[in-house]
Amino acid sequence: MQQISGGVCAAQGFSAGGVRCGLKKKEQPDLALVVSSVPAKAAATYTRNVVQAAPIHVSKRHLADGTLQAVIVNAGNANACAPDGEQNALLMCEYTAKALGIATEQVAVSSTGVIGQSMTPKMGQVEAGIEALAVSLTVDADGSDRAAKAIMTTDLTQKEAAIALTLGGKAVHIGGIAKGSGMIHPNMGTMLCFLTTDAAISSDLLQQALRRAVDVSFNRISVDGDCSTNDFCVILANGLAGNAEIQAEDAEYAAFLAALTELCIYLAREIAADGEGATHLLTCTVQNAPSEQVATTVAKSVIGSSLVKSAFFGRDANWGRILCAMGYSGAEFDPELVAVSFVSVAGEVQVCKDGRGLGFDEELALRVLEPHEVEIRIDMGQGSEGSVCWGCDLTYDYVKINGSYRS
Amino acid sequence: MQQISGGVCAAQGFSAGGVRCGLKKKEQPDLALVVSSVPAKAAATYTRNVVQAAPIHVSKRHLADGTLQAVIVNAGNANACAPDGEQNALLMCEYTAKALGIATEQVAVSSTGVIGQSMTPKMGQVEAGIEALAVSLTVDADGSDRAAKAIMTTDLTQKEAAIALTLGGKAVHIGGIAKGSGMIHPNMGTMLCFLTTDAAISSDLLQQALRRAVDVSFNRISVDGDCSTNDFCVILANGLAGNAEIQAEDAEYAAFLAALTELCIYLAREIAADGEGATHLLTCTVQNAPSEQVATTVAKSVIGSSLVKSAFFGRDANWGRILCAMGYSGAEFDPELVAVSFVSVAGEVQVCKDGRGLGFDEELALRVLEPHEVEIRIDMGQGSEGSVCWGCDLTYDYVKINGSYRS
Repeated sequence: MQQISGGVCAAQGFSAGGVRCGLKKKEQPDLALVVSSVPAKAAATYTRNVVQAAPIHVSKRHLADGTLQAVIVNAGNANACAPDGEQNALLMCEYTAKALGIATEQVAVSSTGVIGQSMTPKMGQVEAGIEALAVSLTVDADGSDRAAKAIMTTDLTQKEAAIALTLGGKAVHIGGIAKGSGMIHPNMGTMLCFLTTDAAISSDLLQQALRRAVDVSFNRISVDGDCSTNDFCVILANGLAGNAEIQAEDAEYAAFLAALTELCIYLAREIAADGEGATHLLTCTVQNAPSEQVATTVAKSVIGSSLVKSAFFGRDANWGRILCAMGYSGAEFDPELVAVSFVSVAGEVQVCKDGRGLGFDEELALRVLEPHEVEIRIDMGQGSEGSVCWGCDLTYDYVKINGSYRS
Repeated sequence: MQQISGGVCAAQGFSAGGVRCGLKKKEQPDLALVVSSVPAKAAATYTRNVVQAAPIHVSKRHLADGTLQAVIVNAGNANACAPDGEQNALLMCEYTAKALGIATEQVAVSSTGVIGQSMTPKMGQVEAGIEALAVSLTVDADGSDRAAKAIMTTDLTQKEAAIALTLGGKAVHIGGIAKGSGMIHPNMGTMLCFLTTDAAISSDLLQQALRRAVDVSFNRISVDGDCSTNDFCVILANGLAGNAEIQAEDAEYAAFLAALTELCIYLAREIAADGEGATHLLTCTVQNAPSEQVATTVAKSVIGSSLVKSAFFGRDANWGRILCAMGYSGAEFDPELVAVSFVSVAGEVQVCKDGRGLGFDEELALRVLEPHEVEIRIDMGQGSEGSVCWGCDLTYDYVKINGSYRS
């Protein structure tokens, strides 16, 4: 498999774009649209938060038949806990359907931004924005780029990627754009991720592949432990690659799943690395655990600990906090068998063995903790399963950004 | 019931003190001792972290017979995940027992500080410190004061309190000292809390009363979501008040439990208010919930959210984050019935009703969020149960303190 350019437009038949309609306070694009030239099979994962935004409800209904042709997205207003939420989410689908000449049920809608503010006063601008957007779509990397920019909120970097593989002799592409920087602790979907592919695959297997790929990518990152009301990850598969439709868990399905997983992990890491205020991308690798479940529980707890995150901001090899976070994770294990190392391009330093501190070179540790990417490698010594989770450090800027988000 | 002075020495027959033996890097006292003049009934709650510090193991053994006469505590080293941990924890009990002329099993031990560093190189200083401490104990407020200071780590304020009540015509006192500022998300005990009383009460009822009081006080605070390896809360009851021993859940037990609970809530609030870097004490009051369990789950989730905590630092009435944190708490409820207000000495502002945002006066909200103490009042509108939890805001200083704790 190879990474290619084109993002969410890399697969055949997909176009995208982004415009400004005025929902964001800053002069930035805030409306994005992704369209398939033909109806596509679609699968999605949603937030498990009990409080779900209105567009989540509407998109679930429109995805019920397993097909979609377009996804309309706005930033600047989450349309969650907001008056007239469902009505406005549905209006966004209707405006899009009308502009594209397709059925309203073929459009999914997604929103991100401040919770609790009504969109009603701005729906005129939204309608005009969607009309302008529909005639500005392009099938190239520029279209993906404009869409990726329009879905950003506190993100500093845009997240897009695409991958190519061969299925049954046909060139197949999977691409996507994502956003997310704060309120990131996905449980099911992530903040927002829009994936496209020209592969032909059955609806059931598309949903199954997405669920598995999301489970080992977006569901394994945490920026601040806050699981959003708007998490949404959707994939459209329009079949234009011309491969024989994948209908069983065969080698072709495995190849598709591997490519989709690689793409989702790439985008998930981009979100973790761009965590609000972050200066480090933290990878927690757990090895030799009794089960994947235990390994994931432990890794997520470590990556989610405010004390661990603060320590990495200060480049402080305070590994005791890692043992502590493993201990309160809820997983049962024997601490006396645990070893911990820190690894980066600058080297490796082991700090704990058999659950006890090792004398280690503090100068070396300081060097190892300097690069942007740092790995926390945990050997549980009680099994052969593993897991990887991603997060970021906790910094002054996280507090600054979130002490004044609405202003 | 009335608050009185004297702290952990307020009850008859208790003496305390604190000295410096050299475990803390700063020139501050780091060794505390609390002693009863006669053997006392004792009950305790411990951290539920799978990774437990050595003194937790040793104290559990010494509490097995339900009696204690002394508690020795050090700050500056948590004696968790440390080589020779159990041996050194036991040595601390032995040194104390020898200095006081009592049995080793009558001494509980507790430690707080950095995880993972061996105490072995400093055990000579610890022994000398305990000898000096044993001859410097006093039965007055000064003794409690010195002990309260010696158990502080990143704490800015010392936490001590005492309360008087009458049981069967006898004056009874309950007092205590506590510490805690970071790694505070207790589950069972709290960071450290040492309680004394001259009440006569059976061992079973003492344990039952402590468990209930801890459950609605220390178990309802969170500073950073990190549940420590060393959490420990112990109460010694020496019976010197001369009341008829409490042996049933009668009115006298109820009065004792009410006083103990009031004391524990006072100390727990002190810990939340002194959270690392905190500028606000946040109280989350949940009313009209379907059960106390749901109310507590929701309140703890709100008080633990990094986004909620950052918003209060910035005095930003960003109530959507409160709904979001309620939604991912794990509790099942109908968001459409929820109302939220902010309350302080400066006034009250309602921001959400029926799960939807209300137009509210932003100037008023800014004034309400200014005082040190702010209450988040949640009316779930779906039952008649309630709960109260306490936390603090997330600030630059939390990150600063924890980016360089070991140095």
